This record gives sequence, C-alpha cells and structure tokens, in this order.
Amino acid sequence: MKKQDKQLDGSHSRRQFIQTSAIAGAGMVLGGTMKAFADESTNAENHTSMIDITKNIKTRGYAATDESGQLSPYEFERRPVGDDDILIDVKFASICHSDIHQEKGHWGKQQYPQVPGHEIVGVVTAVGRNVTKFKVGDRAGVGCMVDSCMECNSCKAGEEHFCDRGETVFTYGYPLESEPTGISQGGYSNKIVVRDHFAVHIPEHISFQEAAPLLCAGITTYSPLMDAQLKVGEKVGVAGIGGLGHMAVKLAVSKGAEVYAFTTSPDKVDDIKSWGAKEVIVVDEAFKNMQAYAKTLDYMICTIPYEFNITPYIFCLKPGGTFTFVGMPIKSEITINNLMLAFARVNFNASLIGGIPETQEVVHYCADNGIKPEIQVIKAENINEAWEKVVNKEARYRYVIDAATF
Amino acid sequence: MKKQDKQLDGSHSRRQFIQTSAIAGAGMVLGGTMKAFADESTNAENHTSMIDITKNIKTRGYAATDESGQLSPYEFERRPVGDDDILIDVKFASICHSDIHQEKGHWGKQQYPQVPGHEIVGVVTAVGRNVTKFKVGDRAGVGCMVDSCMECNSCKAGEEHFCDRGETVFTYGYPLESEPTGISQGGYSNKIVVRDHFAVHIPEHISFQEAAPLLCAGITTYSPLMDAQLKVGEKVGVAGIGGLGHMAVKLAVSKGAEVYAFTTSPDKVDDIKSWGAKEVIVVDEAFKNMQAYAKTLDYMICTIPYEFNITPYIFCLKPGGTFTFVGMPIKSEITINNLMLAFARVNFNASLIGGIPETQEVVHYCADNGIKPEIQVIKAENINEAWEKVVNKEARYRYVIDAATF
Repeated sequence: MKKQDKQLDGSHSRRQFIQTSAIAGAGMVLGGTMKAFADESTNAENHTSMIDITKNIKTRGYAATDESGQLSPYEFERRPVGDDDILIDVKFASICHSDIHQEKGHWGKQQYPQVPGHEIVGVVTAVGRNVTKFKVGDRAGVGCMVDSCMECNSCKAGEEHFCDRGETVFTYGYPLESEPTGISQGGYSNKIVVRDHFAVHIPEHISFQEAAPLLCAGITTYSPLMDAQLKVGEKVGVAGIGGLGHMAVKLAVSKGAEVYAFTTSPDKVDDIKSWGAKEVIVVDEAFKNMQAYAKTLDYMICTIPYEFNITPYIFCLKPGGTFTFVGMPIKSEITINNLMLAFARVNFNASLIGGIPETQEVVHYCADNGIKPEIQVIKAENINEAWEKVVNKEARYRYVIDAATF
Repeated sequence: MKKQDKQLDGSHSRRQFIQTSAIAGAGMVLGGTMKAFADESTNAENHTSMIDITKNIKTRGYAATDESGQLSPYEFERRPVGDDDILIDVKFASICHSDIHQEKGHWGKQQYPQVPGHEIVGVVTAVGRNVTKFKVGDRAGVGCMVDSCMECNSCKAGEEHFCDRGETVFTYGYPLESEPTGISQGGYSNKIVVRDHFAVHIPEHISFQEAAPLLCAGITTYSPLMDAQLKVGEKVGVAGIGGLGHMAVKLAVSKGAEVYAFTTSPDKVDDIKSWGAKEVIVVDEAFKNMQAYAKTLDYMICTIPYEFNITPYIFCLKPGGTFTFVGMPIKSEITINNLMLAFARVNFNASLIGGIPETQEVVHYCADNGIKPEIQVIKAENINEAWEKVVNKEARYRYVIDAATF
C-alpha cells in the first residue's frame, strides 16, 4: 500500500472506504491474500455492484470466431485485477479498419474467439494495490497496446510500442498466459483489465465517444505529423480520408499546415473542406487529377488501408520530401516501384501508433483545441453492418460502439 | 565557330589543322554545309583513318536481338557527329547487371537489336563545331545518359538524370529519332557519338579499364553515399557485394566510414576485408548471422539487383537510419513489409546514378585517391559467358570488355 499512501488527490482514502464498505457489504471473510473490490458506481445510473477483482472478471463483448469478418456476442473472462492493473467499465469502443484486417486474418492467422477493438474509453472501477496513476471514477482510455517490458530503453523513453525486448502486447489477439482465453482481448466489450501505465486519462472537456477514436486514429496520425517537424504553412498531403485520414487533416490543419487531401470519394469533399483543408483532390482511376500537384508537397501521410499504386502519390512530393504510410494492407505488404522512387527522390517510411506519453499528449491536445473526430454512435448489434460500411468506404468517419449495448 | 575561338588550350587550332589536312587528304569537294573529319590516331597503333563525321558513323558492337539474354555481333550506324557532339573511339566498356535486366526485358519491352553498355571509356576522335569541353585525343567516358533538355532547373543544376521535362535520354534503348536504329545504342561497341556535355574527362592517372566501371557502379554508389552526409566513423552497411557493392565498400571506406558488408558469397570475405571493411557478414538463408547487427548501422546502401527480403536488412539500421536501394529488380519492384518498416523506424529510399558534374567528381575522386574497381578484362566473344557469371554471382567484380575485340 506504500504507493497508495503517497497519493495527494484523496483517491486513496476514497478507494479505501469503498473497499472497506464493499467488503462489509459482501459479508465475506477474506483470506490472507490482499483482496480488493470494484466500485461500479460509474455513471448516471449510479448503481453499485460488487465484483471480486481477485477473480477472473466476467465480461460481455463481441468476438470474431473465424476469418469471415462476422462478429457475434461473446461472454468471456478477463484476468483478475493485478497489483498494477486497473479495471475499466468500458463506455465506448470505436471501430478501426485494423480490427477488420486482423480478424479476417489479413495479417496472419488468429486465435478465435477474439474480441477486437483498440479505441476504448470508460471509467475506472477498480485499481490494483500499486496503482497511483488512476483512482476509481477516473475517465480512462486504452489504445493499441496493453503491456510491455517497461524496463528497456525504449519503454523507459515512452516508446513502449518499440519495446527493445519485443514484449509489447497489443490490445487483442496476442498470446497472454495471464488471460483466461490465452490471448489479449480488445475493447468491443463492457470491461477491460489493463496495466495502469497503458491507460491514459480522458479529460472532462471531451466526450467519451469523441475521445475513443483518438486512441488509435488520433495518435497514429499525430505521431508521424509531429515527427515530421513541419513548419507552419508547409504543404501536407493526406491520402485516404477515413477514420485516420480525417484526423490527420484536422490535426495537420490545427498545426498550421496547408493541407491537401486525396480521396476517392467525391461526396467527402465538402466535409474535408469544412475541416480546413486547402484543397481536396478527388483521385480518379488514371490519377489525372493528381498531375497538377507534382512536386508540390513537403510531406504526405497516407492512411489507405490496402495496397495501392503509390507512384502517383510520391510524385506529389517535392524531391527530398517524406511519405509516411500508416495504413497496414493485407500481409502489411506494399510493392514499391524502386525506379519511380528514385526519380521522385522521396523518403518512404512507415509509422506505428505512438508511445503512451504521446498518446496522452494527443488526447489532451485534441480536448484542449476542440479537435473532434466525426463519429456515428452505433449499437453492438450493428457492428457487422458497420464493418461492411468501413470496407466500402461508407463510414463518416468513425463508428463508435456504445458499450452499454454489449 | 565562336565558341571554339574562345578556347585557351590550343585544341582549336590543332583540330582545325586535323580537319583541314583530312579534307585535303581526302581530296573531297565540300558543299555549303560545314563538314568535319575525325582523327583516328588515337592509340599506340597511331594509325590514322578518315571518317566523314557528317555522315552516319559505321559501328561494330554486340547486341541483344531478343529477351534471351544472348548477344551477338552487330554492325550498325550511329548518327553523324552534330555540332554539340563528340565521337569517341571506345577502348573499354564494362558490364553492369542493368545491361542484363534491360536486354532480358525485365524492366519492360525493348526494341531490338539493342546494344547495351553504359560504362564506356575511350578517346575523342572528332568534335562538333560547338564543342569546347573536349578536343580530339582527350580521354573521355560516358555513363548512363547521353542527353537531356539542358534548359530546365534540374538540368541546369547538374541533375540531368532528373530532367524536369522528362527528356533524359539513357544510354541505350531509348527512342531517338536522330539515331539510324531509332534508339540510343550503348557502349558494347567500338564507337559512340554523344553530346559533349554527357561525356566526362578521364584523367591520365587512372587506366581506361579501371575507369570504365566508375561511370555507373562508381557514380551510382558515390552519389547516395555523399547525399547521406555521413560523418567519419559512422557505420555504413553495404548489401550485395558485386560490381556496385564493391565500389560502395571502397568509397565508403575512403570517406572514413566503418563499413559492414553483407554478402551471400563466403569466398568474397577476404577480398572485402582487404578493401578496408570493418566486418563482413555472410548472409545465411535464415538471416541468423544478421541478428547481431540489429540497430547498429547509421546508413545502408543496398545494391542487390533482384527482389529480396529487406526486413532483416532494415533491422540492422538504427531507428531513424536510412536504407538506400540502388538495385533495380525485375519490373523495378520491391515489396516492403510496412509493419516491419514501422517497427524498424527506417527511411527507405532509392537512388538513380548521378548528374554529370557528380559523375566527373567521382572519376576524379577515384583517380586521385587510387580507388580502383576490381576488374577482369574480357573479349567481346566472351560477353555471353560473362553475363551468366554476373547473374550467378561469379563476377570478381566487374567484367570489362576490350573494345578492340568488337
């Protein structure tokens, strides 16, 4: 309890009270091991129910059971809340194209049933004995990873996604002995147990449903945009204006870039312009509309989630410019014409989410600056339909699942 | 003749003399158009023969006639020596893997017969009326390109290979109305007519046969190594130790880099070490030998001329490092695992030869610093055998064809 004693925000005594009263209320006789109980009085309903967090956590969600891309209701258990863990009562989880790729086996064989979802927000309902980062009742979010070694240089530097020991645990589908299902299970569910470090705070001045997409779409576009060290007024291309791309447009505009958005959907043009893009280029099959932009851009971020012909895009960059591909196509493979890349004199790189400190940063940045994703809240029963729409480029622009409907 | 009058090196009067005496010797009556004649007194044999350079230049060489990769003797004509052209009596032409790729149709359909070769050295035997850069008797080299618009910003900046108008003419296989065969024809031949700007001087203190490979293998590796702005002591990887790779090792060593060479040929190890490489890694099929080099290199240049698994290579670079691929595989295509590229945090780019000023620079640099390619001089009749050896990784390290044998 040493760490808890050091808390200055009063959460310790509150939690202690809740734990005590819960124990009393349950009338249980505790054994020699420390036990803690969760406070479920988390929302408007203000109901209180007790969960023994030393035991597996019963959870409801939606899982894929094969590569069909069809999800169905799934009841499963998560690990008990460990000393460094928090239990989150999930409020919303949003749909990322990566969920679809992974569950369909596009990136490799999966273990099923598997619950996808790595844009997760909710309320903390229990904390382990060592936890100081969160207290019960806090608003919290979880993104694409839930653990790492936390001891290597990368982890210490807040780049847990690049854990030097390769121990980064991504939010779903990763083998985990501690999980009753044998793998990490994602956010399309009503509860999640996660190591405290891998949750971020969600400030009060952004809604849960608007915060959810920041945990992947937000950080995945914010991180490379910040790495690019753009100057105000520089010309930034954004290719693929879906869940990630629309955040890239908003973030780049907010940082002072002159944004050129490339989309294959003509009906997105007005939306994109309303977010401050300087120009929207509707990409035609022969890429004719792109020719006028040859060698004009300083930087381009591409969120297209499938393999595509990169050549017309890289030629929009000035020689010496950088093209960052954050989309992860089938097998994660992209074929490049090396001769065209040589002619374009462009640096091609890729970027993978962001570390926990930077994830916290983008959440605060968006909340503070009113940068909100465009969302459509859906019920769990509509997930399959929503997935189809995402694949068919019909999402406008992020589906957010109301976790109360799991 | 205005430009010629400005020459300070005496070449004008010498050429004028040669032209005059040639005209007298031939006893020809010239029409109204300016005519010039070539001095063929170019080498030890010191024979003099007259060629009417206002007419097509009869040439002997070796050409591909289909995609088989088999070359055969070929007699053809080159264009007359124009006002801005020089005629070179080819002494040596070396074999680049690109010759093989292009003639086999690996990069697209070709027009045949086609004479490959873009590492060409010889002696100037005639110059057009506007030429001031060369005089008859000069040692000259021709690389991968023979013309461009010369008016755009890229051309003016000495980056003729990136001609903004797309008018770069590569040395062989490019449609050219001025050429009797309809395409540019390369250096596996006894003569070449080339616009003066696209030839470079070969200083006396490097042999012709050792200078030839500098025109492609030298510049193609030198240019990206210079672009990388490496500091002395930085760790440079070179992948693929053939014609280009062995020059990359020597050039990087000469610039003070700590060089790590990656080869699949164990019998090259001693050679590579003798050129100053710090370490030679013999790449095994499972890439096990490469694991010890994870995240160690600042920069890597890769000359492998076929598609390969880049992932183990890029993981040898430090995060933030750059991988430059100068090999041009079949269709110029390389498939990248974008997820692995994201994990490696490496910039991937490509590089294409170098401009004429930089080509001249590398020739001087190598001559001045005694950086010589490892060569094997062959006769024209052995070209087909040499090509097979190049493909089978048996070249040590550049075959140079003696043009006297065409």
